[in-house]
Amino acid sequence: MAIIVQKFGGTSVGSPERIQAVTSQVIATRQQGHQVVVVLSAMSGETNRLMDLAKSIDNAASGRELDMLLASGEQVSISLLAMSLIKHGYSAVSFLGHQIGIRTNNRFNNARIIDVDNKRLKSELEQGHIVIIAGFQGVDYENNITTLGRGGSDTSAVAIAAALQAKECQIYTDVDGVYTTDPRIDPSARKIHSITFEEMLEMASSGAKVLQTRSVQYAGKFKVPLRVLSSFMPGEGTMIDFQQEAASTNPVSAVTAHKDEAMFSLCSGADLVALNARIFSELAEQDVEVDMIVQSFTRPGTTNLNFTVHRKDFAKTQECLQRLHAELGLSEVDGNQQLAKVSVIGNGMRCHTGITAQIFATLAAANVKVFLVSTSEIKISVLVLESDLNGAVQALHKKFLIKLDI
Amino acid sequence: MAIIVQKFGGTSVGSPERIQAVTSQVIATRQQGHQVVVVLSAMSGETNRLMDLAKSIDNAASGRELDMLLASGEQVSISLLAMSLIKHGYSAVSFLGHQIGIRTNNRFNNARIIDVDNKRLKSELEQGHIVIIAGFQGVDYENNITTLGRGGSDTSAVAIAAALQAKECQIYTDVDGVYTTDPRIDPSARKIHSITFEEMLEMASSGAKVLQTRSVQYAGKFKVPLRVLSSFMPGEGTMIDFQQEAASTNPVSAVTAHKDEAMFSLCSGADLVALNARIFSELAEQDVEVDMIVQSFTRPGTTNLNFTVHRKDFAKTQECLQRLHAELGLSEVDGNQQLAKVSVIGNGMRCHTGITAQIFATLAAANVKVFLVSTSEIKISVLVLESDLNGAVQALHKKFLIKLDI
Repeated sequence: MAIIVQKFGGTSVGSPERIQAVTSQVIATRQQGHQVVVVLSAMSGETNRLMDLAKSIDNAASGRELDMLLASGEQVSISLLAMSLIKHGYSAVSFLGHQIGIRTNNRFNNARIIDVDNKRLKSELEQGHIVIIAGFQGVDYENNITTLGRGGSDTSAVAIAAALQAKECQIYTDVDGVYTTDPRIDPSARKIHSITFEEMLEMASSGAKVLQTRSVQYAGKFKVPLRVLSSFMPGEGTMIDFQQEAASTNPVSAVTAHKDEAMFSLCSGADLVALNARIFSELAEQDVEVDMIVQSFTRPGTTNLNFTVHRKDFAKTQECLQRLHAELGLSEVDGNQQLAKVSVIGNGMRCHTGITAQIFATLAAANVKVFLVSTSEIKISVLVLESDLNGAVQALHKKFLIKLDI
Repeated sequence: MAIIVQKFGGTSVGSPERIQAVTSQVIATRQQGHQVVVVLSAMSGETNRLMDLAKSIDNAASGRELDMLLASGEQVSISLLAMSLIKHGYSAVSFLGHQIGIRTNNRFNNARIIDVDNKRLKSELEQGHIVIIAGFQGVDYENNITTLGRGGSDTSAVAIAAALQAKECQIYTDVDGVYTTDPRIDPSARKIHSITFEEMLEMASSGAKVLQTRSVQYAGKFKVPLRVLSSFMPGEGTMIDFQQEAASTNPVSAVTAHKDEAMFSLCSGADLVALNARIFSELAEQDVEVDMIVQSFTRPGTTNLNFTVHRKDFAKTQECLQRLHAELGLSEVDGNQQLAKVSVIGNGMRCHTGITAQIFATLAAANVKVFLVSTSEIKISVLVLESDLNGAVQALHKKFLIKLDI
């Protein structure tokens, strides 16, 4: 008997009717002869309700007590699903993070899982129980309740699957898999049958929201086969696993789009290392995440620096640069908020040369102006005008992903 | 520095405004130089909301998973109070049952506390923290979440006070103390300044709803001074402690009323012991609690049996007697649903003779017919027509409790 871990998000358990649907799904998996472990988020709306309560007490609520509050949400959904399975004649048992030893560090509100103790889990499965686990939560070494931050339930599911050496970790979402591009931008987008961890990781960090980056990292590190499926429609979904032979015939797997980019360009006579250190540490302190960074030397003794941030951080970044203006001898500081990022991702790009040239030729033919370029081993990202985003995605998707078997 | 344990019920933490009021109360106690431990129920309405969710899944939800669900209610109120105290500049920390080792048996939905580990509690208090604890919950020896049943938070508070050898366990309620009788029945009812555990126990089991029987038992057993106060108005409340010298001058402490009684009378030729065993074990299996029992022998070979049950169990009891009719040779089975119980309670009754005679004379003068009588060392209860209840209470209260210093 193989162990299957299934994770359902808040929308999937958002009402008694939805819990009924999850019950049927879990029973179906059980009837296929698997040992089933279910990981749940809080019912949709519940986390917001709890946050509103916290804010009514303290608008800046955070830390240990906020985690104590928020962790109660999953406690409700797991016990309701257990009741539902029991009512259908299955023996089910629900567990909180502390009960099965989900140990985290003590960074409240954004903790990392350090270890999952599989003893109790294994014993419950061996007794024939369906095990239901509260996602998003754990305990630190002093037994304080911690939560894992946004998308934490995905990470819980992967960590549990790793601890149990599960055959597969299935993430049920509101989409039926990972697509070659965003279907809202290009209706010819197709569902991807299988993809590697690295590609999924690049996609997640490039705008595809289907999985949280941390959970994909974790799955890759612990070699947990991950599958994304829909909790609303049947289908095989998308398998995220190690490189498969077939995949290498196609250099590109997906084109992703990320709106809401902002770019800053500036010149300085200051030393390059000092300039970077000062600007980026100042932005990090303000919790501004810097994405693409490009620097060049046009005139001797002068550094050109271009970098992008999320558009919501535009004003914060601008203020920060103003504060540093005199100190760093900045000149020609320029900000542009109307940009977007397009990324071409593919494991096959490692061994296919000329992809970069094809990307630029395709964008030029579509009259798309490119502001910045950044590359990794399996990804090329370009910064374009937001008004060019859809055209760029469609042109690249057509060039690399139409009429190919994926 | 003395340790004070304060317990607040659901109404007292039912809204952000009420949590603010509890915050002020806790800070005031702290500023008097005490170490403060707060025990909370779930916000009023929360337990009903959770029960409704459970019933939407399984109308007969119970057992382990129901406890998992219900225990989430207190988790919300304790973290909110901690946030509120922290916002006011006090260091506060909230704990669930499992985190401070509130160990219970595994009788889900109605568990008993076996032990409270005081190590972490003491360490937190020594660090100067205000400690806030989820009432109503614990964990069994397998770390499953359990709940203590109705009024369980009172018991939690007493058990924690016992484990910490607290100076006092204060139970904040919506009344400002224990009264000589129900003020809705007799407006001349007066607040009792102090009362013994045994008297309080008899009052709780005779209809006074201010404290749950189990928490008073626990307080008596572990010698925890208990105080009932109002969370809405200031005052000393009522102290529940060991016998005090002054109390013995007054034989009677309180008159309690309990409506909703039903009585059954029957005759049988069966052996008395067999008759009792059969009927009462059958009723126990149906979860029917029998209160007063009186038997007599009018004719040789015939047993008269009278007993009372809560009126809600009238039909259940009737069916049960019908089932046993032939087997036990029952005759003259009669049921009366229009009865009520009046109890006269006083520690001083131990050493004052003639109280019983005075009670019957008083009731006779008020034209109250008595159906059954039962006595304990410090209590005399009589069963009367519900229509006579108010008159009986007023007459007895006037006889024993007006113009006396309590």
